[in-house]
Amino acid sequence: MMGHQQQVRILQERTAKMLAQQGIILTPHERAAIEIADFGLDEAERTGLEIVVYVNTDRYCAKELVLFPRQTCPEHRHPPIGGDPGKMETFRCRWGTVWLYVEGEPTEQIQAQVPQGSEAYYTVFHEIALLPGQQYTIPPNTRHWFQAGDEGAIVSEFSSTSRDAFDEFTDPRIRRVPDMVKE
Amino acid sequence: MMGHQQQVRILQERTAKMLAQQGIILTPHERAAIEIADFGLDEAERTGLEIVVYVNTDRYCAKELVLFPRQTCPEHRHPPIGGDPGKMETFRCRWGTVWLYVEGEPTEQIQAQVPQGSEAYYTVFHEIALLPGQQYTIPPNTRHWFQAGDEGAIVSEFSSTSRDAFDEFTDPRIRRVPDMVKE
Repeated sequence: MMGHQQQVRILQERTAKMLAQQGIILTPHERAAIEIADFGLDEAERTGLEIVVYVNTDRYCAKELVLFPRQTCPEHRHPPIGGDPGKMETFRCRWGTVWLYVEGEPTEQIQAQVPQGSEAYYTVFHEIALLPGQQYTIPPNTRHWFQAGDEGAIVSEFSSTSRDAFDEFTDPRIRRVPDMVKE
Repeated sequence: MMGHQQQVRILQERTAKMLAQQGIILTPHERAAIEIADFGLDEAERTGLEIVVYVNTDRYCAKELVLFPRQTCPEHRHPPIGGDPGKMETFRCRWGTVWLYVEGEPTEQIQAQVPQGSEAYYTVFHEIALLPGQQYTIPPNTRHWFQAGDEGAIVSEFSSTSRDAFDEFTDPRIRRVPDMVKE
């Protein structure tokens, strides 16, 4: 049986390859530090997200997000923390297709597939389809989730400071383990 | 003789082509809004910068910077404004080579060429060479300037809020005209 570390390395390599195919170059250190977020659900390829953190200061943050085909980042929001109104983030699609769901008028027939068995934990259905060159800014403290199309997707995230440990997920089974790679 | 508007459009098209060649896709609106910054020196291809602003909120900013071969962005700093300590920015090289100069121990033999006739207005020479995948964060209120290598360069800029009109240039002849494209 494949060990957890080995599985993480395989997914890291797959992520680095998708980025390289689109001309996005990482340093060896960044490649080794790609986060494979499985949100504690242990089904990373279905519900998960691959993350390269370029910079995260006390003023701003920039990441590259990679989604495998039909992979879903589960519903969550970035709540206020102290004097901070909560993380504000802009998703810019670089490659592939991503369907983003936010609070607001539900879209009648959404294009994503809610992960089977987790239907109770997906509650916002206002769809924003992002193709390469298109972007959307999510206000602080707003519930959102997203899923890639059949090819997968690469999304640049520009945001205020990222404090992943404070994210609030709709699914109570979720544990956010931002340092999984370094376990 | 070529009109100013016509020249701007030609440089916008050249910029969009360089981005497209590296797989960086813009919307038609973004292409039309590419800023050709000539800093009032009227020699944009030598001293200038091409800018795509993806997002600029009161919390963060993200841009794509394009430099033509050996083009120079002249020395400047981002001063404090009210309670803001000044813009902090991270330059990530995506393609080509960029030589960045900041305050600190001067590098003995720098690789850039200071624009002839403007030597008096370049005063910091601590060199940071950035190749694709490499990045550097410039603290607020720190003098800096940068020049592309012989191929040109594409640089992603992640930063705190951008307020270009407040930038302080070492060269007193410089006027920053951020909305030149829309004149």
